[in-house]
Amino acid sequence: MDILKERILKDGKVIGNDILKVDSFLNHQIDVKLLNEIGMEFRKRFGGEIVDKILTVESSGIGVACITAQYFDFVPVIFAKKHEAFNLDTETYESDIFSFTKNKNYRIRVSKKYINPGDKILIIDDFLANGSASLGLVKIAKEAGAKIVGVGIVIEKAFQHGRKILETENVRIESLAIVKSMEKGLVIFEEN
Amino acid sequence: MDILKERILKDGKVIGNDILKVDSFLNHQIDVKLLNEIGMEFRKRFGGEIVDKILTVESSGIGVACITAQYFDFVPVIFAKKHEAFNLDTETYESDIFSFTKNKNYRIRVSKKYINPGDKILIIDDFLANGSASLGLVKIAKEAGAKIVGVGIVIEKAFQHGRKILETENVRIESLAIVKSMEKGLVIFEEN
Repeated sequence: MDILKERILKDGKVIGNDILKVDSFLNHQIDVKLLNEIGMEFRKRFGGEIVDKILTVESSGIGVACITAQYFDFVPVIFAKKHEAFNLDTETYESDIFSFTKNKNYRIRVSKKYINPGDKILIIDDFLANGSASLGLVKIAKEAGAKIVGVGIVIEKAFQHGRKILETENVRIESLAIVKSMEKGLVIFEEN
Repeated sequence: MDILKERILKDGKVIGNDILKVDSFLNHQIDVKLLNEIGMEFRKRFGGEIVDKILTVESSGIGVACITAQYFDFVPVIFAKKHEAFNLDTETYESDIFSFTKNKNYRIRVSKKYINPGDKILIIDDFLANGSASLGLVKIAKEAGAKIVGVGIVIEKAFQHGRKILETENVRIESLAIVKSMEKGLVIFEEN
């Protein structure tokens, strides 16, 4: 997706060897017009598929998921919770994930009320890096007996192992920008 | 906003005396069509105002803010971060808030890069209860030298003290559904 790659080259910042900072348009300040382009692109990529619900994880996935849902007939968005709250149901699907940007383990949770057996679920997230968050969402959807239509990722870092890990779960992955390397601060994309 | 009040009566659950659970359409599962109605209503209420940016706080504010931005000429959305991360700038505006649903203090942060003096900021959040989160956002916007156009709230619990606290900051508050009381599990709205 050229408009996204151009934006990453223009406004993304490489920190160290493996952090790509896109907080000016994706995960702190959000460019909602760009999210609409992203939503349309997911619609194109998963065009032939029936989607009942979009599943993501707080926080950075929520904006992308909500805007994308508009291109899938306004299906409901469900976001997995990373943090305990009094108002979360006690009956939940759970999965443990590790966040490298926060250097912390999280247990993500989805109320059992919101995913039903047979639901056709599109998983959406902002990044695929080590695959921990996406894998957690896949596990939750599978535990619920849902059918996973695919995993839609805004930015994949191909030099980490997320795709390999997700592929063991036999899910279709569509990443809109695939970063092959970020050596010396230079972002190089895979052709896709 | 009638469609919202009807939805709260239909799908909201009162827990104890002061928790209104709306996780089936607002803050766990999200009804994106309803968010569009909410966005349009905010546009109507703040119709005469120029808005440069929408400011909210993770996580539940993000969906509402992103959809609402579409009705304000796709202005950028900025969400304050509640959790530390390696990829957040070190130069931040900060405010301490207390979450009653999580029984926990948070320091919320916004990178100084994303709010500039003179910016016309619309603050959006899902709930106004004790006012802690909204007040934190107001303080951050003021510290940055921004002009606060107003605070747009989806659901206000008028029997708590959020509005009183916010009014000391001289900000305009627009709440789309104002809950007057929830005694015996019965939600009663104020006329507005």
